[in-house]
Amino acid sequence: MTPEEFRKAGHHVVDWIADYLRDVGERPVLPDVEPGELTDRLPLSAPEKGEPMEEILEDFRELIVPGIVHWNHPRFLAYFANSASGPGILGEMLAAALNDNHMLWKTGPAATELEQVSLSWLRQWLGLPEDFFGIIHDTASTATMHAVIAARSAAGAHDISSLVLYTSEHANLSVDRAALAAGVGRGHIRHIEADDDFRMRPAALTAAIESDLRAGKRPFCIVPTLGTTSSASLDPLPEIAAIARQYGLWLHVDAAYAGPAAILEEHRSLLNGAELSDSLVINPHKWLFTPMDLSILYTRRPDDFRRALSLEEAPAYIQTAGSGREVNLCEYTVSLGRRFRALKLWFVLRSYGREGVEKILRSHIELARAFAQKISESPDFELAAPQMFSLVCFRWKGSDQENRELLEKINDSGRAFLSGTTLHGRFVLRLAIGNIGTTKADLEEVWDLLEKLKP
Amino acid sequence: MTPEEFRKAGHHVVDWIADYLRDVGERPVLPDVEPGELTDRLPLSAPEKGEPMEEILEDFRELIVPGIVHWNHPRFLAYFANSASGPGILGEMLAAALNDNHMLWKTGPAATELEQVSLSWLRQWLGLPEDFFGIIHDTASTATMHAVIAARSAAGAHDISSLVLYTSEHANLSVDRAALAAGVGRGHIRHIEADDDFRMRPAALTAAIESDLRAGKRPFCIVPTLGTTSSASLDPLPEIAAIARQYGLWLHVDAAYAGPAAILEEHRSLLNGAELSDSLVINPHKWLFTPMDLSILYTRRPDDFRRALSLEEAPAYIQTAGSGREVNLCEYTVSLGRRFRALKLWFVLRSYGREGVEKILRSHIELARAFAQKISESPDFELAAPQMFSLVCFRWKGSDQENRELLEKINDSGRAFLSGTTLHGRFVLRLAIGNIGTTKADLEEVWDLLEKLKP
Repeated sequence: MTPEEFRKAGHHVVDWIADYLRDVGERPVLPDVEPGELTDRLPLSAPEKGEPMEEILEDFRELIVPGIVHWNHPRFLAYFANSASGPGILGEMLAAALNDNHMLWKTGPAATELEQVSLSWLRQWLGLPEDFFGIIHDTASTATMHAVIAARSAAGAHDISSLVLYTSEHANLSVDRAALAAGVGRGHIRHIEADDDFRMRPAALTAAIESDLRAGKRPFCIVPTLGTTSSASLDPLPEIAAIARQYGLWLHVDAAYAGPAAILEEHRSLLNGAELSDSLVINPHKWLFTPMDLSILYTRRPDDFRRALSLEEAPAYIQTAGSGREVNLCEYTVSLGRRFRALKLWFVLRSYGREGVEKILRSHIELARAFAQKISESPDFELAAPQMFSLVCFRWKGSDQENRELLEKINDSGRAFLSGTTLHGRFVLRLAIGNIGTTKADLEEVWDLLEKLKP
Repeated sequence: MTPEEFRKAGHHVVDWIADYLRDVGERPVLPDVEPGELTDRLPLSAPEKGEPMEEILEDFRELIVPGIVHWNHPRFLAYFANSASGPGILGEMLAAALNDNHMLWKTGPAATELEQVSLSWLRQWLGLPEDFFGIIHDTASTATMHAVIAARSAAGAHDISSLVLYTSEHANLSVDRAALAAGVGRGHIRHIEADDDFRMRPAALTAAIESDLRAGKRPFCIVPTLGTTSSASLDPLPEIAAIARQYGLWLHVDAAYAGPAAILEEHRSLLNGAELSDSLVINPHKWLFTPMDLSILYTRRPDDFRRALSLEEAPAYIQTAGSGREVNLCEYTVSLGRRFRALKLWFVLRSYGREGVEKILRSHIELARAFAQKISESPDFELAAPQMFSLVCFRWKGSDQENRELLEKINDSGRAFLSGTTLHGRFVLRLAIGNIGTTKADLEEVWDLLEKLKP
């Protein structure tokens, strides 16, 4: 493909994307496809001869797009909804063309420094301490795994088998998987019970640590969540941070979803206690309009990350990552290669500015509040958890089975995509707002669907 | 940003990329910047108000691009050179816009199936067994880490501290880091000595395993390399595979760089023995014209990967990943979220076809051979390792210091970027061809530089 052929195809693709962004709301959110359907429609083998780009793009439109779950749809309201904003997409286009790999400063000076600068910008918005070093990972799972590995290493553990990690019964599965990857035993991951509002109980945490200590185990890490996956509840960070300090445990905060809300003055307090954490993860690809993937790990102990992955146990010199001018980011991550992910974040932060970001976050929270209000005023529905941020957990006042069927009907309609979870032993529906295109009209449409499809 | 604003900016960006792809060869490969230079030119904080995209793009051109190492430059010949080809960039553009996250089949049917199909296509080209299950990771480091974790889990290790991993003294650093991340002790990573041509010695491997067994250690994993980082040497896979089988050890093959050469009939034999491996990594973002990042892990033991990251030690049912029609790819990786990376690979495989891919790979190998020929015929230079694939290791017939200075002068010229390494205790230069734009004229330019800049 010559540059001129790229130019021609590229303009087609941009037009397709612009049309897509304009019309995505008219598509069914979920595709109507069966497992294996696409596989059966694709050739068994790659072509011998190269094919024209027009044909590939046609197959993209005719074969791939009908099997897409439209995560970028304004009525994608499942899991934690997200956005590939225009500025973010432009950043990805340029990053792909440059193909920069900033494993070392010298292999990507601009990419290395832009990563540090844009993460510093966001850190300021979040009100996190100035000495927090930031680094980009693909996902929160990977970031949390690195935190657990650093914690394991900082614990000076030659015998990993006695280490114990603490998280809440409402923590994301990624915490368990991070611990398993790091070699923590299956029986050494404690899921501390939560209170009635799904927040980790500090007293239960202390009791579990004491019990493990008595049994000769070695507590080493606590992972509280700010914005749990099921209900967006907030574990009581100040109390948990005090416990971590008391017992000398690594404190890693999973703020993947709710973190960006701290940009808003009225929600800034959600990060109270985070200044005492050893590390914290927040996902711009969740609720900060940045295309997949971009997760940020902030830490005030970058050297522990570097040491954990260094062959030398006690390095001859300690480079302070936060202040060094020639930081080699690959020293802090398992992956040596690094895509130029910071570019899209920089585009997003600049294009929206703080005011623009705040306006969208507030609108999402306001939409969720209004929807929760409608739920709580309805004779047929009820809230299933305190309404938090841009999430509403609710249920039809009936059986679990009926709620499951209601969810299925909504999703089968193609008009909206919600997800489900279990809270207090009962099946509930989750409506999560995170797409920049979601409006009041979209929520009204969901409400109409609920009214129409309820048992 | 409205869809129409995106359209306008997108067309600008496509034109910039097309111009860039056309003219990148005229830019200095390496930027002339000091650490901190970009940081100092950027504002200390993000803007309060959103900024126009024209301004952001202007800053991209004026501030970011001058600090870019042009990995997509035809005379980027350092490390292992790579390419963001036009089709690959188009794939990335569309993936960013769709923002699909196929953690589960149901959250991305097309992305899940296209990943399996395109990896099956490539598997066929490589001549790997049909039952090898493929999954995409960001980098070979991450893929190898997953292999080590699966190996650790398959070894049934509750006591990780006695496990020992074997690799060659010429293995990539990523193998060590993968082992450290998985909790293997620093003193339990054996770097087996290589022969004069930098290939792991099977006899030394056996001796090390025997010695560890006598000492009560538990050997669990061997990681040979096909295409080592320094010299692209090939560890003798058939012999090593036999040893792995004899001792019941997990065999993970690092074919990140050289793997694609097996697409060529005349190099197919390089993967001899790979059919006996438990897992193998190959990087399309290295020598298969796919933008960063896309690394593939093939394995005939996918269930071991799933089990290693599952909270249940003995799952109630075993889903066979290779044949199931509804595969949930996140079960096999630490990261739960998954970008739609397969799209760019599918674009590349189709756009070039097997003939196109073979033609480029052969041309790179031919260019390297011709360059090596020139080196070996020169009175001033000598080959420093057997010429392998698209890599040439060579040195000026003088001191290490003079060779270091020569490398520095070449790179400072901006006309080409080579890297250095140490072989047999001596500093040598590496010239690696991997960019689709590299031509005979580019290599002639490097030759002229060598002649002009040699001591």
